[in-house]
Amino acid sequence: MPPDGKLLNESRLHEKMAALKLDAVVATSPENVTYSSGFWALPQWIRRGPQTYVLWPAPERGEPEIITSTGTLDLIADQPIWVEKVRRYGDFHIDQGPEPPRDAVSLRLLEMLRSESHRDAIEALAVAIGKAGLARSRIGIDEIGLMPGQFGALEALLPDATFIPATSLFRDVRAVKTEEEITRLGIVAQIAERSIAAALDLAEEGSSEVELARAFHVQTVRDDALPVLGCIGFGERSALMNVQPSDRTLRLGDVIRFDVGGRYRHYRADIARIATFGEASKQVRDLHHALLSGIERACEMIRPGVRVADVHDATVETVRREGIRHYRRNHVGHGIGLDGYDAPSLTASSEEVFEENMVLSVETPYYEIGRFGLQVEDMVVVRRDGVERLMTTSGDLVVVPQ
Amino acid sequence: MPPDGKLLNESRLHEKMAALKLDAVVATSPENVTYSSGFWALPQWIRRGPQTYVLWPAPERGEPEIITSTGTLDLIADQPIWVEKVRRYGDFHIDQGPEPPRDAVSLRLLEMLRSESHRDAIEALAVAIGKAGLARSRIGIDEIGLMPGQFGALEALLPDATFIPATSLFRDVRAVKTEEEITRLGIVAQIAERSIAAALDLAEEGSSEVELARAFHVQTVRDDALPVLGCIGFGERSALMNVQPSDRTLRLGDVIRFDVGGRYRHYRADIARIATFGEASKQVRDLHHALLSGIERACEMIRPGVRVADVHDATVETVRREGIRHYRRNHVGHGIGLDGYDAPSLTASSEEVFEENMVLSVETPYYEIGRFGLQVEDMVVVRRDGVERLMTTSGDLVVVPQ
Repeated sequence: MPPDGKLLNESRLHEKMAALKLDAVVATSPENVTYSSGFWALPQWIRRGPQTYVLWPAPERGEPEIITSTGTLDLIADQPIWVEKVRRYGDFHIDQGPEPPRDAVSLRLLEMLRSESHRDAIEALAVAIGKAGLARSRIGIDEIGLMPGQFGALEALLPDATFIPATSLFRDVRAVKTEEEITRLGIVAQIAERSIAAALDLAEEGSSEVELARAFHVQTVRDDALPVLGCIGFGERSALMNVQPSDRTLRLGDVIRFDVGGRYRHYRADIARIATFGEASKQVRDLHHALLSGIERACEMIRPGVRVADVHDATVETVRREGIRHYRRNHVGHGIGLDGYDAPSLTASSEEVFEENMVLSVETPYYEIGRFGLQVEDMVVVRRDGVERLMTTSGDLVVVPQ
Repeated sequence: MPPDGKLLNESRLHEKMAALKLDAVVATSPENVTYSSGFWALPQWIRRGPQTYVLWPAPERGEPEIITSTGTLDLIADQPIWVEKVRRYGDFHIDQGPEPPRDAVSLRLLEMLRSESHRDAIEALAVAIGKAGLARSRIGIDEIGLMPGQFGALEALLPDATFIPATSLFRDVRAVKTEEEITRLGIVAQIAERSIAAALDLAEEGSSEVELARAFHVQTVRDDALPVLGCIGFGERSALMNVQPSDRTLRLGDVIRFDVGGRYRHYRADIARIATFGEASKQVRDLHHALLSGIERACEMIRPGVRVADVHDATVETVRREGIRHYRRNHVGHGIGLDGYDAPSLTASSEEVFEENMVLSVETPYYEIGRFGLQVEDMVVVRRDGVERLMTTSGDLVVVPQ
């Protein structure tokens, strides 16, 4: 397994922990477990209920530790994980042949199977906290991944500890990406672009939304990503903001809206592009020009230290000045990473400023109900001197010839 | 949109509600919302946090009602949903051109946009409960979909209501499938079989796990399903229970284990098949025979009224008698539906009996660490007179010629 760069922005995590005077944090949601350890625990990613945690002490307070079910230890043995301590709970029967295994993954799995197993996830977490000498400390816990009752169960096992909700802390840490994260986000953004191109290759009179969506997802999978978001709509259906592909067939003059993106090595894309089948009407061209101008204005302004709210306002203002006088948006984009909506959210009421190495989906959608939806959405990285685009295509209108 | 059969087993829901003396239940998790209303709310399925609910009163206590964010109303207008009342929360800007829309979906969306919007999901739910005259009643709430603090917030808004956790009630209702659910499960099981065949078409000296997985998922997507579970391992890696495809290449004599299944119209597959590259060794054939015998024994026994624990015991006993004397398993299968692990779980300690129209993944995995993993897993429906297989292939060993 080649050594990967870390996903975790460790110095930022420690800084945010210090600001809240936390002796440790516990990741419980799939995104935050993968983020803090590198461990992708299959059951917790594909279902709700299965529990995997990462206990991450403040510097000098001990080693980080993964708490997971026995049935997932093979994934720990096989993945590039930077947390070495592992505590398990529950049983899983695995057999051994007459000879010991020879490959490193199997040997590591066997070694972990020899460790003590705990009754359940919360008990294992409580033991980990206790053994780390943190039973009387102040611990941030990513509350979103716990099942109902588990927060209380943990408090009952560790009555002298103080638990503080920490999902928002993780969200804040994850907002500023490491280079490994930026690399993956660039790859998945471009997979989405290639998938749009593959779908448009099929666009002709009579092809359906479902056919284009199928071609889109086939390309995504060929490029080793997994389908997640596939809003593809024609004509009046392009105005449905979450449009799911139907049997609606393509007709001359239709707008085709893509709001799409898969997941590559756990990292999400979310981009949008507009095509028309045949020449676009003057109205569509004018509206699209206004939306694209908004994105361009946002990308000119964004750099470290600039207020998020100012960029929101300038983007909306630009779209209005360039032709959509009634344009209104709650947000003109959002962070993107392990989650499709990472921090920051580009709203008028935001009190945040942009920071170097944030990755954003910047967008200006416009939905005219019953007629068409238009949208430009680009993924960009905030660099020291401004925005670096992760895209290879422009947001220009694509005209699919008749 | 063609009228679909209902997913919801309404009579069973009402029966289970009556047994707990519930005046209403509230679905909150994506699976239970889709199940009870037909509504697939995109944001809640692809992220954790977004809230959509279905309030379902007992018979004679009122009409069911969906509570969802304004930004998802287009999906309600466009989907085959059998709950007509909708209550929304939050804002989303959608524009109108000079002329009213003419298509039914846009008209329905406009109509819903004219309704009052509430501040947030919990407030909207509390209003719905109040307006239904249920503010002093006993309400089952699917606790698993709520975010931390929301249960308490709801109790504070409705101090005279009694809220009972109801995730397990929904799980129990969902265990017995409607014909529409069985149809979808049959389709997705066979998509998984075709995807295995597509992957095996590529199997030759030097092809990698990743290459087979790519071919697997491409077929799944071509058949309009989405990839979820794709454990595909060669040789010693086939013994890793959750094996994720790597660059390991195929060598003569390798076992190839598939434990796989996508999602088709929200319904999951989970099946397993074993192939060998070149003739299988006598040992592999013997072990596989024992595992397959276990499945056959289970399928012979399963019918309405038979105890789940008895089938577990007989299955393990058969595998032991047929050659794996040390065979042990926590479970030999599970229900399957909207979730990959629906009820019942086929364990020794189960107190359940099989019921007509349960759909099960019956499985006998065997992992010999560092050497190989073998597994047969079939999807079946419990019919009045016994088991109906949803598969077109047998669980026999497939030999891929050299």
